[in-house]
Amino acid sequence: MDPITTLTLRAPDDWHVHLRDGPMLKAVVWHTIKQFRRALVMPNLTPPVLTADDVHAYRAEIQDATFPTFEPLMTIKITDRTTPEIVRAAREAGAVAGKLYPEGVTTNSEDGVRSFWDLRPVFCAMRDCGMILSLHAETPGVFVMDREANFLHQYVSPLAVSLPGLRIVVEHATSAAAVRLVDEHPNVGCTITPHHLYLTLDDVVGGALNPHAFCKPIAKTHRDRDELVKAAISGHPRIFLGTDSAPHVIVKKECASGCAGVFCAPVALETVAEVFDRHSVLHRMEHFVAEAGAKFYGLPLNTGQITLRRETWRVPEDLQGVRPFMAGKELAWKSRSL
Amino acid sequence: MDPITTLTLRAPDDWHVHLRDGPMLKAVVWHTIKQFRRALVMPNLTPPVLTADDVHAYRAEIQDATFPTFEPLMTIKITDRTTPEIVRAAREAGAVAGKLYPEGVTTNSEDGVRSFWDLRPVFCAMRDCGMILSLHAETPGVFVMDREANFLHQYVSPLAVSLPGLRIVVEHATSAAAVRLVDEHPNVGCTITPHHLYLTLDDVVGGALNPHAFCKPIAKTHRDRDELVKAAISGHPRIFLGTDSAPHVIVKKECASGCAGVFCAPVALETVAEVFDRHSVLHRMEHFVAEAGAKFYGLPLNTGQITLRRETWRVPEDLQGVRPFMAGKELAWKSRSL
Repeated sequence: MDPITTLTLRAPDDWHVHLRDGPMLKAVVWHTIKQFRRALVMPNLTPPVLTADDVHAYRAEIQDATFPTFEPLMTIKITDRTTPEIVRAAREAGAVAGKLYPEGVTTNSEDGVRSFWDLRPVFCAMRDCGMILSLHAETPGVFVMDREANFLHQYVSPLAVSLPGLRIVVEHATSAAAVRLVDEHPNVGCTITPHHLYLTLDDVVGGALNPHAFCKPIAKTHRDRDELVKAAISGHPRIFLGTDSAPHVIVKKECASGCAGVFCAPVALETVAEVFDRHSVLHRMEHFVAEAGAKFYGLPLNTGQITLRRETWRVPEDLQGVRPFMAGKELAWKSRSL
Repeated sequence: MDPITTLTLRAPDDWHVHLRDGPMLKAVVWHTIKQFRRALVMPNLTPPVLTADDVHAYRAEIQDATFPTFEPLMTIKITDRTTPEIVRAAREAGAVAGKLYPEGVTTNSEDGVRSFWDLRPVFCAMRDCGMILSLHAETPGVFVMDREANFLHQYVSPLAVSLPGLRIVVEHATSAAAVRLVDEHPNVGCTITPHHLYLTLDDVVGGALNPHAFCKPIAKTHRDRDELVKAAISGHPRIFLGTDSAPHVIVKKECASGCAGVFCAPVALETVAEVFDRHSVLHRMEHFVAEAGAKFYGLPLNTGQITLRRETWRVPEDLQGVRPFMAGKELAWKSRSL
């Protein structure tokens, strides 16, 4: 059988992206909107997106930098100071998710949550108004390779059982434990990034140190990576693409105190296609990138299509001062713009 | 009881150091000779120290950059092309150890060993002429956190049993498995670095990415680190200090492809003293830094002494273009020069 040379998919959604603000927003947003009709925009700016007013302002800034064909799906940051009233107002303002970062686990999380269980009234309000709880699922202070599994066990599993009406997304899942947890709880889904379908800790520290493969949660073992691939290509109803594309200018990566984050937006669909292709399941890719997430969020599926062609190309080393995922490597698929 | 404020020790030995060559040798060697009477000098230069002639030349270069009070203990690099004749000639030339790097595991190991067991005649020659086999104990291709334990199991343990007359040093031990192995084999010792008494993987990738804590073998779990500390302070007859001080200019660390190595020579005794002090076993430090290694190598103990004082000081951020271990941190002990 001849290999598939063209792949046409429903216009996809990115269920986790850092679009930044100011000049960086303008520099990077194109890489998202050319491939995704909608994207769930993370709120960890400085200062963060905390309230309905912030949602309006940030949405306006994004809309100003993009086209009306792109729909930013807005989020607020859940902190120890978030109240049920703030949640309801943000939902009114169109925020579809509240993102919770435990304190200190990643970029701009110094004001993250310290008292998870004290937020129960907030979680109930989210459930009642249909706002998704989006989790950076890592326990601060735990050994870096165990932080995700620990958080799932300590927080996500009990919360999922205790509030079955609350829909929870474990963001950027990196472990076999996350896949297992999603399987066990019908109200829990997870996003998987393109880069976590490729990377393990070996890519970060196994050869020379590679700051451009450094992200949070850190890429884990080969077994974890393989379980993520299996989950992504499985057609699971609650597992979907969230790129976690997180651009940092090169000097913030190649320094004494490197920022966490992989800028994968420029190669998101292409790298995902390569994984599905390798496992001969390209026919399941649409589910992962364009259907499962929308269904979990209760949003209509996109209309319109995107086409990828089997076409070898080399990823640039530098895009707007940021080094993209797979920089300098050859990819086998090339996406047309939406 | 008043805390000890002065610590006088027999002049110490560093059983593993990278002194480099050319300008870097001149820039860094002072940090070694001010604290150590002797140091086992690693042979992985470019080109490497392979033969008796290389030993003579490298020793002369080091002597040219130092004082006669400092004795460089020379090594050759064991490669697939090393022969029993080369070993015997190098031993004649004064090399006390042959250092074996598996191919590709660390800086300048592209010409490392591919066929470990083919070297049995070389190992026998080393045994017969009293040359120590010094091992970078990591199996290439294995997951980075498991490489050391794998190599110990695959190679060191069988070799130690099969050639009981060969003395083997597992260099820069990073795991509980290494400590266990040394315990089990009377012909196997290990060096422990100052930084592996402090670091875990959390210090490398647990917060912001820290290239200055990146070394090979990579720092492991908290349990591994704690077992190394226990072993170092235990007074074990075959466990001794080897700094693995490995200076790289800052631009080679803070880049897209960072070199492995921690420049700990400038704070070697001070950081070790802090560990022994914390465990109230300063009286055992002399064994670790000045006695156990010499006895294992069959060399006379040094005469002369070095004094450390309890005195708070801040480690410079930059020494000759290289960032030292503990840069910017306060230490509680300060070593006088030999």
